[in-house]
Amino acid sequence: MYRKEIKVLDCTVRDGGLQNKWQFSDKFVKAVYNACVEAGVDYMEIGYKSSESAYSKTENGPWKFCEEKDLRRIVGDNKTNLKLAAMADIGRIAFEDIPKKSDSLLDMIRVACYDYQVDKGIALAEHCMDKGYEVSLNLMAVSAISEMALDQALSDIAKSKIPIVYLVDSFGSMYSEQIHFLMTKYKKALPGKTIGFHGHNNMQLAFSNTIETIIEGANMLDGTFLGLGRGAGNCGTEQLLTFLKNPKYRVKPVFNAIQHEIIPLQKTLSWGYHIPYLITGYLNLHPSSAMKWMDSAERDDFMTFFENTIDSRKELE
Amino acid sequence: MYRKEIKVLDCTVRDGGLQNKWQFSDKFVKAVYNACVEAGVDYMEIGYKSSESAYSKTENGPWKFCEEKDLRRIVGDNKTNLKLAAMADIGRIAFEDIPKKSDSLLDMIRVACYDYQVDKGIALAEHCMDKGYEVSLNLMAVSAISEMALDQALSDIAKSKIPIVYLVDSFGSMYSEQIHFLMTKYKKALPGKTIGFHGHNNMQLAFSNTIETIIEGANMLDGTFLGLGRGAGNCGTEQLLTFLKNPKYRVKPVFNAIQHEIIPLQKTLSWGYHIPYLITGYLNLHPSSAMKWMDSAERDDFMTFFENTIDSRKELE
Repeated sequence: MYRKEIKVLDCTVRDGGLQNKWQFSDKFVKAVYNACVEAGVDYMEIGYKSSESAYSKTENGPWKFCEEKDLRRIVGDNKTNLKLAAMADIGRIAFEDIPKKSDSLLDMIRVACYDYQVDKGIALAEHCMDKGYEVSLNLMAVSAISEMALDQALSDIAKSKIPIVYLVDSFGSMYSEQIHFLMTKYKKALPGKTIGFHGHNNMQLAFSNTIETIIEGANMLDGTFLGLGRGAGNCGTEQLLTFLKNPKYRVKPVFNAIQHEIIPLQKTLSWGYHIPYLITGYLNLHPSSAMKWMDSAERDDFMTFFENTIDSRKELE
Repeated sequence: MYRKEIKVLDCTVRDGGLQNKWQFSDKFVKAVYNACVEAGVDYMEIGYKSSESAYSKTENGPWKFCEEKDLRRIVGDNKTNLKLAAMADIGRIAFEDIPKKSDSLLDMIRVACYDYQVDKGIALAEHCMDKGYEVSLNLMAVSAISEMALDQALSDIAKSKIPIVYLVDSFGSMYSEQIHFLMTKYKKALPGKTIGFHGHNNMQLAFSNTIETIIEGANMLDGTFLGLGRGAGNCGTEQLLTFLKNPKYRVKPVFNAIQHEIIPLQKTLSWGYHIPYLITGYLNLHPSSAMKWMDSAERDDFMTFFENTIDSRKELE
């Protein structure tokens, strides 16, 4: 029933940190780490790898940088089956700020880029491979670019050494028909490479879209505990583990961490499905306007948000 | 792009009333009605048609009974394009308690039954047809019966006059593969009949499953405002309208009613996705235990709920 090639990557701390600038307590990060280990999750993305020149270290917590001393404080020598990953954004990290794999607790670097940065993304990913890391390339915001631009980017990636390429639904705007269309395209354009999926829950479709990519052969699947993540959040790691018929995964440790660490966060952090996210999702817009609205005093006046958003679209036409 | 045969049925008051015994204010019911009219929704299911001998009229609000005087107070003569529906449960309504269509503001009766009640369901539905109503048969809890029992029920329904048959995901336990399997089965077993879908959001799949039934040809689609409904709730009518590329629908009036009538209800009523519902959903169990848990003081201790639920399953084995 299950596919042994499937790997689950939990990015609770990395994607969730977008909501609080990675100001998590060590207790929280350790609880997520321990739950991932006990649950049999394959990879934990613990944050971003960024240069200190790109971001303030007072404004941003340690998981924006993933320094070795911070990693070691949480995971010790990480003598577990859980691999550690960090995301790297193009333009926010210099090659020389990435240590050799032999000097790092990180196992994988996931390079995130837009289509117009794909050459830089490939160069950074191949640089990380040369330093000894596993890598993936996560091509963002593909719902908002032309098919020609997407085909060109995929063609460039196909020629690279990068073994894992992510379909990313950055705006949470994809329906199952687009998932099947894009998965077919990615598989055809990227023979021999593993396809991953990272969804967002703007229209409450992050979990179902993940399932559709599994049906289409995606073997790297992202989730976060209770969907904690940017704006409307992500596919729940707990949802994914209940779906996968794989004896190596155990959902109970994730439920436990959700109860004791994630639910309490809801008092101070806001994420998850809400009407403004549905609006940007179905209009295929970046959720930044909805996130700003949800942080404002007017958050529940989504009629005004709807009208502003529709008006701003009309101005474009 | 759109399919003109598709009809949307909003059952906010009927399914939502399961959370408060239909104790809605007239202002609330009028707001939902007006929003449905303005949104171009095809049917509004305003409650249950029940006999007074079956339920207490002090404990249950008027929408458990849908008396003509109550309907008229909300909709007047209903000189609109919105059709009104009520649900009838087997054993809770006597034939003689259903007025002739010419004496009623109701346009449609939806008969809900389990597979072992299907003969009674067909008899009641055909009785309502004889009295002049549109009818549907909503076969509940099919995820928990044998395929032989389901095939037998569908075979019986196929021989009836009933024109509309619903695939119902009562436990919110279906994934897209089951939706496609069951839609294929229903279409084959029920030639010439319209297939509808009513989902529940226990695993956050109510909207996506509705989309999959559309792909498979379902033409009667249920939703509720902000998913208001039993336990984890339903597909959001607003989600459905943003998905359907049909100029006859307008989502704005639904957003407006959600902002002004549904969001305020969240202060006193609890519904929507929560971990206990995911647990009963993926275990294919009736959500009643999760609903009871969510009404208790222990609602956030879902580790105990998880362990109790797993233990109760083991006892069955």
